[in-house]
Amino acid sequence: MNDHAHLLELFLDHLKKHTTSLSDKHPVELYAPEKYILSLGGKRIRPLLALVACDLFDADPKQALGSALCVELFHNFSLVHDDILDGAPLRRNKPTVHTKWNVNIAILSGDAMLVKAFQALEPYSGVERQALFALFSKTAIDVCEGQQFDMNFETQKDVAVSDYLHMILLKTAVLLGCSLKMGAINAGSSEGDQNYLYDFGKHLGIAFQLMDDYLDAFAEDSEKFGKQLGGDIISNKKTFLLLKAMELANTEQRGQLNKILNCSDPKEKVSDMLKIYDLLHIKQYCMEEADKHTALAIQALEHVSGSPPKKLALKTFALDLLNRQI
Amino acid sequence: MNDHAHLLELFLDHLKKHTTSLSDKHPVELYAPEKYILSLGGKRIRPLLALVACDLFDADPKQALGSALCVELFHNFSLVHDDILDGAPLRRNKPTVHTKWNVNIAILSGDAMLVKAFQALEPYSGVERQALFALFSKTAIDVCEGQQFDMNFETQKDVAVSDYLHMILLKTAVLLGCSLKMGAINAGSSEGDQNYLYDFGKHLGIAFQLMDDYLDAFAEDSEKFGKQLGGDIISNKKTFLLLKAMELANTEQRGQLNKILNCSDPKEKVSDMLKIYDLLHIKQYCMEEADKHTALAIQALEHVSGSPPKKLALKTFALDLLNRQI
Repeated sequence: MNDHAHLLELFLDHLKKHTTSLSDKHPVELYAPEKYILSLGGKRIRPLLALVACDLFDADPKQALGSALCVELFHNFSLVHDDILDGAPLRRNKPTVHTKWNVNIAILSGDAMLVKAFQALEPYSGVERQALFALFSKTAIDVCEGQQFDMNFETQKDVAVSDYLHMILLKTAVLLGCSLKMGAINAGSSEGDQNYLYDFGKHLGIAFQLMDDYLDAFAEDSEKFGKQLGGDIISNKKTFLLLKAMELANTEQRGQLNKILNCSDPKEKVSDMLKIYDLLHIKQYCMEEADKHTALAIQALEHVSGSPPKKLALKTFALDLLNRQI
Repeated sequence: MNDHAHLLELFLDHLKKHTTSLSDKHPVELYAPEKYILSLGGKRIRPLLALVACDLFDADPKQALGSALCVELFHNFSLVHDDILDGAPLRRNKPTVHTKWNVNIAILSGDAMLVKAFQALEPYSGVERQALFALFSKTAIDVCEGQQFDMNFETQKDVAVSDYLHMILLKTAVLLGCSLKMGAINAGSSEGDQNYLYDFGKHLGIAFQLMDDYLDAFAEDSEKFGKQLGGDIISNKKTFLLLKAMELANTEQRGQLNKILNCSDPKEKVSDMLKIYDLLHIKQYCMEEADKHTALAIQALEHVSGSPPKKLALKTFALDLLNRQI
């Protein structure tokens, strides 16, 4: 991350200007939630990737600030609406927008942020703008589709592992690919380079989500992980782990799995599920799948024609991201 | 309307292509609501205004089909989300999206429609696209602000008539202005003409909303009006009528008004409110305000340099719209 500290600072300055401009806008109820959610922090991975991608081709990273703001606004819009859909009370240990205000305000301020994500692309013109716009709007639709698939999975009986991978591709991964590609477009790089960076981000995103699933069950240091260990197991979340276990289980094990899913004692539930995961080598399968996408990401990055030391820094950043909690 | 029948048909064909394309898209839960709400009918005023404006300058109205689809998608997005905010069970006598499916699906499919409204502008390029995009995104933000003001009014104690007029400007009128201006942009008309058409639409929209308030209380033929007479009075809606009455009432009348607002018998409530409205000449005030904006709309239209017979047809269309239920 250190290699990119100045880029992060550049973005945070830009974001600060945006949030400051919200202070005197009316109606307050529409803009205070936007300011609030944007101020909750987070790693700013998506805007950072846009700036890093632009910088990779030795272009002025400032050119990617519009793209960076666009993806950060979009990401935060999706957090506000997803938190309503999930009924989540907390986000980064603070009340979610619909909890702090109410659902109506969360819907409407989210809508306004989605519009502003598009507005953030207004400073661009011509072919650059056309390319950014088409990429971003396609990605925004992908993310909505991914979110809907994820909601469907909650009540869907049979979800294949391949369905799950397609869902996380849409819900999480494409926005990372989009962020990088937007930065590459801002740098005026070749279409080949743009697409390799998109693939890099896409596979990084899938690996990232798989590691998130993995760590929920197997993190050795739950504090570093930052979430309750086994939270996915307790809530019967259809993660890669559970779906892979369902796929591999024989009839008897499938019966056991269903019993565990209905268990009301959280401690017993987690412990029993981990035993089945162990029996079916789920840990290894998940790590293998994550490794596969990490390798594909790195392979795509190798093809990019940007500055070698900067490519190395981006690779290090990506690997740090994946290993952040191990 | 007859003068514009071919334009309406042109748009409906285009819309049909759009809704047909939704049929084979997944996840179904994201696209079926879009198809549903777009198929509920309605007068298609906004897309029609875009085509009419383009046609006014003898340009091919087909050029405005992207703009027309954009404003219709946006309008329907706002209906889906507003119906959640209002807890409305019915829309055009059919179940609202969140009633037919659920709130989560309504939020998410609305989000996707908002993105698609932007996507509808993708066929345009260069300066035309830049102008359409800036106008539309500004308008979209205005509409969100208007909706938030409207929500605030529900619990706000003192709402001035001027606040109300500002709210309906944002929530309803600017989208009519935007639709017309987009069509004028598509026709390549002068900036002056574009702005006059915007003002025409803006004032038409305000007059339209005022007539809606008026007819809720004073329509002679409730079937033609299409809604329950006195519905706004029963639900204590802060319309122009109520706010004007509040403004003009003396201390005693203000006490009476508050008593009526707390009355639980709908029939008595409507009858008592109409008596106060009569006493304070609210009917006349409302008609005067609507007339003022109608005159301003027509005045703006006079300045437009389009074809005189087509301007006349647009004026007739506007007046028909305002008088539709009297």
